[in-house]
Amino acid sequence: MNRQDALALDAADPLAPLRELFHVPAGLIYLDGNSLGVLPRATAARVQQVVAQEWGEGLIRSWNSAGWMDLPARVGDKIARLVGAGAGTLVVADSTSVNLFKVLSAAMAIAREDQPARRTIVSERSNFPTDLYIAESLAAQHGCELVLVEPEGLAAALDARCAVLMLTHVNYRSGRMHDMAAVTAAAHAAGALVIWDLAHSAGAVPVDLTAAGADFAVGCGYKYLNGGPGAPAFVWAHPRHVGRFWQPLAGWIGHAAPFEFMSGYRPAPGIARYQCGTPAVLSLAALECGVDTVLAADSLGGMAALRAKSLALTRLFAERVQATCPGLALASPAADAERGSQVCLSHPDIGYAVVQALIARGVIGDFRAPDVLRFGFTPLYLRHVDAYDAAEHLRQVLEREEWRRPEFNQRLTVT
Amino acid sequence: MNRQDALALDAADPLAPLRELFHVPAGLIYLDGNSLGVLPRATAARVQQVVAQEWGEGLIRSWNSAGWMDLPARVGDKIARLVGAGAGTLVVADSTSVNLFKVLSAAMAIAREDQPARRTIVSERSNFPTDLYIAESLAAQHGCELVLVEPEGLAAALDARCAVLMLTHVNYRSGRMHDMAAVTAAAHAAGALVIWDLAHSAGAVPVDLTAAGADFAVGCGYKYLNGGPGAPAFVWAHPRHVGRFWQPLAGWIGHAAPFEFMSGYRPAPGIARYQCGTPAVLSLAALECGVDTVLAADSLGGMAALRAKSLALTRLFAERVQATCPGLALASPAADAERGSQVCLSHPDIGYAVVQALIARGVIGDFRAPDVLRFGFTPLYLRHVDAYDAAEHLRQVLEREEWRRPEFNQRLTVT
Repeated sequence: MNRQDALALDAADPLAPLRELFHVPAGLIYLDGNSLGVLPRATAARVQQVVAQEWGEGLIRSWNSAGWMDLPARVGDKIARLVGAGAGTLVVADSTSVNLFKVLSAAMAIAREDQPARRTIVSERSNFPTDLYIAESLAAQHGCELVLVEPEGLAAALDARCAVLMLTHVNYRSGRMHDMAAVTAAAHAAGALVIWDLAHSAGAVPVDLTAAGADFAVGCGYKYLNGGPGAPAFVWAHPRHVGRFWQPLAGWIGHAAPFEFMSGYRPAPGIARYQCGTPAVLSLAALECGVDTVLAADSLGGMAALRAKSLALTRLFAERVQATCPGLALASPAADAERGSQVCLSHPDIGYAVVQALIARGVIGDFRAPDVLRFGFTPLYLRHVDAYDAAEHLRQVLEREEWRRPEFNQRLTVT
Repeated sequence: MNRQDALALDAADPLAPLRELFHVPAGLIYLDGNSLGVLPRATAARVQQVVAQEWGEGLIRSWNSAGWMDLPARVGDKIARLVGAGAGTLVVADSTSVNLFKVLSAAMAIAREDQPARRTIVSERSNFPTDLYIAESLAAQHGCELVLVEPEGLAAALDARCAVLMLTHVNYRSGRMHDMAAVTAAAHAAGALVIWDLAHSAGAVPVDLTAAGADFAVGCGYKYLNGGPGAPAFVWAHPRHVGRFWQPLAGWIGHAAPFEFMSGYRPAPGIARYQCGTPAVLSLAALECGVDTVLAADSLGGMAALRAKSLALTRLFAERVQATCPGLALASPAADAERGSQVCLSHPDIGYAVVQALIARGVIGDFRAPDVLRFGFTPLYLRHVDAYDAAEHLRQVLEREEWRRPEFNQRLTVT
């Protein structure tokens, strides 16, 4: 594989036109779409329309006339198509953290009623921290135990005490992807409910919540869904559960009749009860533009085609790095079936500085303490030559020891 | 008072220039700023800058370079100035409903530790429904009782069983305003903690949480703070409480070191622990523009001047209506000290249709079932002549029986 080979792959790439849907800043190789997706070209005009026309001119009337009230369900239905959820079973609301609180509360309530002897929530020690913090909070509140294990310890933790298994489908740090169907089946066989966090999956890898028979899911709007910084998140509950218990964040927008202003809570039918406060209209409009960029792949092969390209990109990058950067270890799975849409490398000492040196060259990845260099590959807007060039930049940073520069070793609090 | 008198009041109004900060659609008298504030002129450009520059060009780097991480505290500090909260004690996050869940959980935890025999949450039956739904949910979860009373029954409900008194400062439906200092003192004398919902207060009436010695507060960004549809909300905890218990929505942004990605939750110092998920950057930027419009009154007399004008507007409208619309009853307090920044009228039958007929004339108020016609007066952008003309439109709607038209009697689900 040389650079000409990469360019030839791009020339033959049926998904190549999708890059035109985005504003990719000139000179940038952006490998952080797993943290914040690139701005879709349609978003600025749409947000401006919402601000200047729908809000500015329509004012309060736009809740009806501009369909603001329908946004959580409408955008939710679009996301549902990407994760194998039925129409009307997924809604956009709040943040991933808040939605995790809802579904974990609901799952624990179901478990408490059906199998009161089960008192543990099982998750991975390397799960994204907010998932663990929410679980820690709810476990303490309900007198349950949060059991954190390594991936290889999951099977053993699915014992007769386990009420809920809560996992992130693609690990934020390692890029390791679970076999959703197999893990869900194993958990169900052990008598546990399963919650999937799709933060690094929705829009990145094929997901079929229905086929897997999953119980609950949440996911993030600002990563592969390109919804913008702090975009609202989504929440899904399997129809077999959604009507049994409402979640504790019983806000007025989840009420069966919010505009009748009744003093007693009566949950809306279906997933609508997982809404809480007033929908964040500006953010929802931006998120819809982002989701539309993923749905634009439908006529070009859809998620299967996106997945094939994602694997080609991550494989290309990982192989080039392994061939040319001997000091770095591959920290994401080599096997395609176990890898999400990212490549992780590790170095015991200089990871942070290497990432900064790459950013100075216009190659944006990120660093996850203590030692992971993380590179996300969004097939919607990345080219094979980007993956090739990124590896070459990395080689040069190491060869020229650019990471030694003092300015690359001053840790900021946020990455 | 005739129309010339109203115009003369406007000519002499020191706050009149503030109207120029807003895009008030031509031909509209907008009396619904208590539901959704008018678009500030600065917002469109600011949101566009966030979308096109900070997100589009800066991408992930903007969390540092554009100060995105600081937005919840920075905008919070601005709102703090409007409600008598100290710098660094108020933060913008989530929705009002979600924030109510946080502070009511915290207040109940404090009460449970300090005074375990107290087992009731007291509120008003006419409180905004989302407040009651959240309280109902938490009361059920904690085995407590939610006691709902009429305003005149509050004193009696503050008995030895009361753990928390949760009130909205200005009632959404009636416009009735509590004496925050007196009610807080009475609740404290009875041994209860007090939570204030400032949804219809912040930016509308003077509030001094510190002077009142209140315990917790939440409030809304999209009403008198002009933050846009579904703008994020705010939350305040008195410094004497904030460090004792963290709230159960223990998301990563409320962690002491979110970017160290530790598996155990350690709450951030101070009010920052009342954050949960990733800040909604677009919405926060829009909210800041809205809050700035209220702070722009600082050099013109600040909240005291805004309050004086608000009272003049509501008094003018109420007096004109009472003089010219005999079929309508005044449903908001006549006494200035008891009235927020709105006027409510009631009619047993035709309220909805009258509001629709007014809207068709370009006078936008709203209807709150079953019988309230609600008119909010935002002194930042409304003129005395608007109040005068609105009353005149109302008189004509009644005199000409415009409310009889069929199209004004088809109830939509949302207002």
